[in-house]
Amino acid sequence: MPREVTVGIGDDAAVVRAGGDGAWVFTTDLLAEHIHFTRTTTPFLDLGYKSGAANLSDLAAMGASPRYLLIDLALPLTLSRAQVLAFYRGLSAVCRPHQVCVIGGDTSASRSDLFIAVTAIGRMDAAPAIQRSGARVGDLVYVSGTLGDSLAGLTLLQGADRRTTALSHSARRFLLARHRRPTPRIALGLALARHRLATAMLDISDGLSGDLPHLCMRSHVGVELDATAIPTSAPLQHFAALTGRSPLDLALQGGEDYELLFTASPANATAIAALSRRLGLPLTAIGRITRKHTGRRLRLATGTRRALTVTGYRHFQGPSSPPRMGRR
Amino acid sequence: MPREVTVGIGDDAAVVRAGGDGAWVFTTDLLAEHIHFTRTTTPFLDLGYKSGAANLSDLAAMGASPRYLLIDLALPLTLSRAQVLAFYRGLSAVCRPHQVCVIGGDTSASRSDLFIAVTAIGRMDAAPAIQRSGARVGDLVYVSGTLGDSLAGLTLLQGADRRTTALSHSARRFLLARHRRPTPRIALGLALARHRLATAMLDISDGLSGDLPHLCMRSHVGVELDATAIPTSAPLQHFAALTGRSPLDLALQGGEDYELLFTASPANATAIAALSRRLGLPLTAIGRITRKHTGRRLRLATGTRRALTVTGYRHFQGPSSPPRMGRR
Repeated sequence: MPREVTVGIGDDAAVVRAGGDGAWVFTTDLLAEHIHFTRTTTPFLDLGYKSGAANLSDLAAMGASPRYLLIDLALPLTLSRAQVLAFYRGLSAVCRPHQVCVIGGDTSASRSDLFIAVTAIGRMDAAPAIQRSGARVGDLVYVSGTLGDSLAGLTLLQGADRRTTALSHSARRFLLARHRRPTPRIALGLALARHRLATAMLDISDGLSGDLPHLCMRSHVGVELDATAIPTSAPLQHFAALTGRSPLDLALQGGEDYELLFTASPANATAIAALSRRLGLPLTAIGRITRKHTGRRLRLATGTRRALTVTGYRHFQGPSSPPRMGRR
Repeated sequence: MPREVTVGIGDDAAVVRAGGDGAWVFTTDLLAEHIHFTRTTTPFLDLGYKSGAANLSDLAAMGASPRYLLIDLALPLTLSRAQVLAFYRGLSAVCRPHQVCVIGGDTSASRSDLFIAVTAIGRMDAAPAIQRSGARVGDLVYVSGTLGDSLAGLTLLQGADRRTTALSHSARRFLLARHRRPTPRIALGLALARHRLATAMLDISDGLSGDLPHLCMRSHVGVELDATAIPTSAPLQHFAALTGRSPLDLALQGGEDYELLFTASPANATAIAALSRRLGLPLTAIGRITRKHTGRRLRLATGTRRALTVTGYRHFQGPSSPPRMGRR
């Protein structure tokens, strides 16, 4: 690999040094119908929005500023022009606030399913990109926002659990919005990189239990999470109570939250608390990085510890898994 | 569009100014099974090679130097690990001579067909990119190499025309290689850009008759081609004679040649002839740019002129069209 490639395959995005202090950041995601989404639960407007959001979130996870997209679409011949336009309207809605432009793309017919491949291009200024590999023993583990909301929103869209009809209108709207219009945490990623507050970072697309191991493995460390600290929203807690599920399990396995998971030295805790207030976004310390040999563990409210097992989504499990946009 | 984007959608690639004199060049292509290729005529090794070649050819058509690829693959569950490895071996074969590296990608399952989305990243140094829009009235129209070979090679692979069994072993091998291992004309594109010899350029992926109109429309000009000047190889001429087809028609409609089509001031004819000798690659003047109102015409050997009609491949014609990798 040439020396100008400072981050290659295996992180949220690749980083290529540009002239001067800057760097370009590249990431790509493939979304397949019936694997990552169905048209039943994801209308075209949402599909466009989420295709963009997933990629912008990968750039945010490096601390990059998003600039450009290239879009490839394999379109079933049964699709209408209105559906394709709705896709682009949704894409535009997630791009506009960040002045991200589509600079290229390709379209093709598809005999069956719809496929979407998005490549996102971002820019790092002077600060180095935040990789998955930088976590150190003793670092605090942080997560932005709340977890599990998107999975609850998807469950509501699927409409299979009639117990959820008791959910308040506003709680339902919150959970649906979290699934349909996730917010890529661009400003947070930029601030963490610029002020060098984080040692490692990735975005949560396959659930906390699915993504945290990537960070631990790349950093050669273990982790101990505090189950009582993992942030969940009031609507999610209500949803969990109604459906007889544990909010903790939903938070651990819920994909597509697109929150940022990062590690930081305890010395930066005050600065991170200040950043949280400035952004109006909860940044919660949920555990601590440990030595690798201690493994990845979860300390429950009772004080007992159990292994943190992967319960996030995996594509290749076959058609019985529910389709979700989670990746990597 | 931000000012740093000097070429946007509608050319072979987008160009974004970098710090200093340079620029980054981005292009993406989507290849769909049964639309662009079938596994019968394109084994995985060839598929990997051609997926890379198509994108490198788009960069060559801007005069860029190829640097990086990102690869998205939607893989049917029936594919074997050996098939996927063969794909990457083929991709590597086209990348290696140009030191092009894969820096990212994504894979997904696919319920039915195989889909490949490749994004290629190239670099322009000081010279400006050669766009489709720069042709001027009086410019000569040039094409590299010979045309129609790839279409003849595809016909041989399909094996439907038994008259081709009379073709010599070496002619068959030549035509098959031109279909299976097209050469992206990187060195030619770079030299034309560096020495500012061409006013407009694109690569021929959908046939001369399919691609030349893009250049004319973007440049707001007409063209008159000299049918007797269009270069065809001896193997193609033999293939045409055996199958009762006209070499001219094969050259006009043959997709996937990945030769470069460019326009240049007659003042550069000597320099272009010298470049042709240096590269060991035929560069043939096949016509002249005319005013827009004269249209796009072909002057036949008899001296009569006919309209240059599009006979290249179009994806959305439906399943009766033969699958080819041609794009745009």
